[in-house]
Amino acid sequence: MTVAVEDGFDQWARAELAAVESALETWVPAAAPAGLGEAMRYGVLDGGKRLRPLLVLAACRAVGGQREAALRAAVAVELIHAYSLVHDDMPCMDNDVLRRGKPTVHVKCGEAQAMLAGDAMQALAFEVLTPVDGGMAPALQARLVGLLARSAGHAGMAGGQAIDLASIGRGLDEAELRDMHRRKTGALLQASVMMGAACGHATAATESALSDYGWAIGVAFQVVDDILDVTQSAATLGKTAGKDQSDNKPTYVSVLGLDAARREAQALRLQAHEALAASGLGPAAAWLGILADKVVEREN
Amino acid sequence: MTVAVEDGFDQWARAELAAVESALETWVPAAAPAGLGEAMRYGVLDGGKRLRPLLVLAACRAVGGQREAALRAAVAVELIHAYSLVHDDMPCMDNDVLRRGKPTVHVKCGEAQAMLAGDAMQALAFEVLTPVDGGMAPALQARLVGLLARSAGHAGMAGGQAIDLASIGRGLDEAELRDMHRRKTGALLQASVMMGAACGHATAATESALSDYGWAIGVAFQVVDDILDVTQSAATLGKTAGKDQSDNKPTYVSVLGLDAARREAQALRLQAHEALAASGLGPAAAWLGILADKVVEREN
Repeated sequence: MTVAVEDGFDQWARAELAAVESALETWVPAAAPAGLGEAMRYGVLDGGKRLRPLLVLAACRAVGGQREAALRAAVAVELIHAYSLVHDDMPCMDNDVLRRGKPTVHVKCGEAQAMLAGDAMQALAFEVLTPVDGGMAPALQARLVGLLARSAGHAGMAGGQAIDLASIGRGLDEAELRDMHRRKTGALLQASVMMGAACGHATAATESALSDYGWAIGVAFQVVDDILDVTQSAATLGKTAGKDQSDNKPTYVSVLGLDAARREAQALRLQAHEALAASGLGPAAAWLGILADKVVEREN
Repeated sequence: MTVAVEDGFDQWARAELAAVESALETWVPAAAPAGLGEAMRYGVLDGGKRLRPLLVLAACRAVGGQREAALRAAVAVELIHAYSLVHDDMPCMDNDVLRRGKPTVHVKCGEAQAMLAGDAMQALAFEVLTPVDGGMAPALQARLVGLLARSAGHAGMAGGQAIDLASIGRGLDEAELRDMHRRKTGALLQASVMMGAACGHATAATESALSDYGWAIGVAFQVVDDILDVTQSAATLGKTAGKDQSDNKPTYVSVLGLDAARREAQALRLQAHEALAASGLGPAAAWLGILADKVVEREN
């Protein structure tokens, strides 16, 4: 990747991240009653890598789709991701006190408010996808809702978290671990790509290639997460480090070993690039290629 | 109301309730991984009055709408209602151990699984509203998602629960109490009516009258709930009785007194019937009238 292309990406990403922050700032209501709005905003504003929104917007750009619709999709998918973190951090789940370098929502606002804030964030994702002002074709609204709901629900993220929960102290083999990750993290990342693609008119072959791309980076993201949990400090991660091991959770590192996990991450990066090459999108997909690299090379 | 009309309603309601149970049985997945499906099914199958599904289906019938779409809407709104009960019963919220005469989901399946099951039930509601097989017009899918998400989220149910949470031990005046109930219970009941109406082609005047009807029964439902909490036994309610008082929660009974609360419930029933009379739907709205009576006359 040349320096000029990287510069172009950085400039694009900076502008899009600012647009996503501004949209979140507008759409996550400060006015929601009795502290609920503050808890929702605390859970989603001013933090996070915003990888999912960038995937939505990069996929939309790759297929020449409608950016305004993609911005709604980007915000919706980030709301789902953020709500899952709020609930996942709670004492009955991972019992984590630190997230993005700040106290977690239940530490800041109490457990009941954190649960409600997560619930309201999930609902808000679907509100954002169904604007009443008619600015978005109803067929696109319905398609985006369907993609997001299926990736967030029992067959996707929530199902993966249930497997995660059941696996603590029990161990998983490689196939079970892969299934868990595909659902828990992969489904929403893949859906981000597909939601972006839905904002344009991709051929079936392009959609299929983008789906493969989304699958590869989805798994890669989790493999790298597992690697970072054992190789990075809490200061770098912005969350508690070494948590998987102390919770006796099966991870790619505990199942495959650190070196094999690193090779796996590189193999998945290659798969993602091959899928982009097969998509027929050519240079329009360049930002997706850079995002695949960033998923694997990230340090937090 | 004549006996013949009541009989007609009972026959209709029995058939529709069977259809709703069968649809829930089919759409709430037994196969979801690691106990999640069982927890979701435990939380929503085989219990509950199914008032919201009946409101959806009665409103659809009143406007001559598409019943298959209304059945999806009925299941979706019941999934939202059921998930809210699962989360509401958890130790960090109401800490209730009995619901519909059975141990609550977190007692049966553990807190983490209960939280995940609630989360997955919310997502499933939006999956049910966006079938991929094309059996439902995308514009209707988008409209139903928008109505449901807004009634479930910060401006509706979740917002009402936040007010409820903040009010414990502090007290609310009548206006605040009414605002809380309008959101916490009223929003989803009103949305049930509007979702049923959306499955047909109601005029703006009819929609507005049905919205008034939904508002009145929504508030009536909660007033009656507060009355039953102090007048009925746990055996009749199928949940812990006297809970509001022991939790020091403001209710219609604690704010208005029992007699005034009863008068309020009757006044709201009258308002509901007046709204139906204004709807121009005539006898087609009879089942909605009976449902208003049942909301006020119920004993559990």
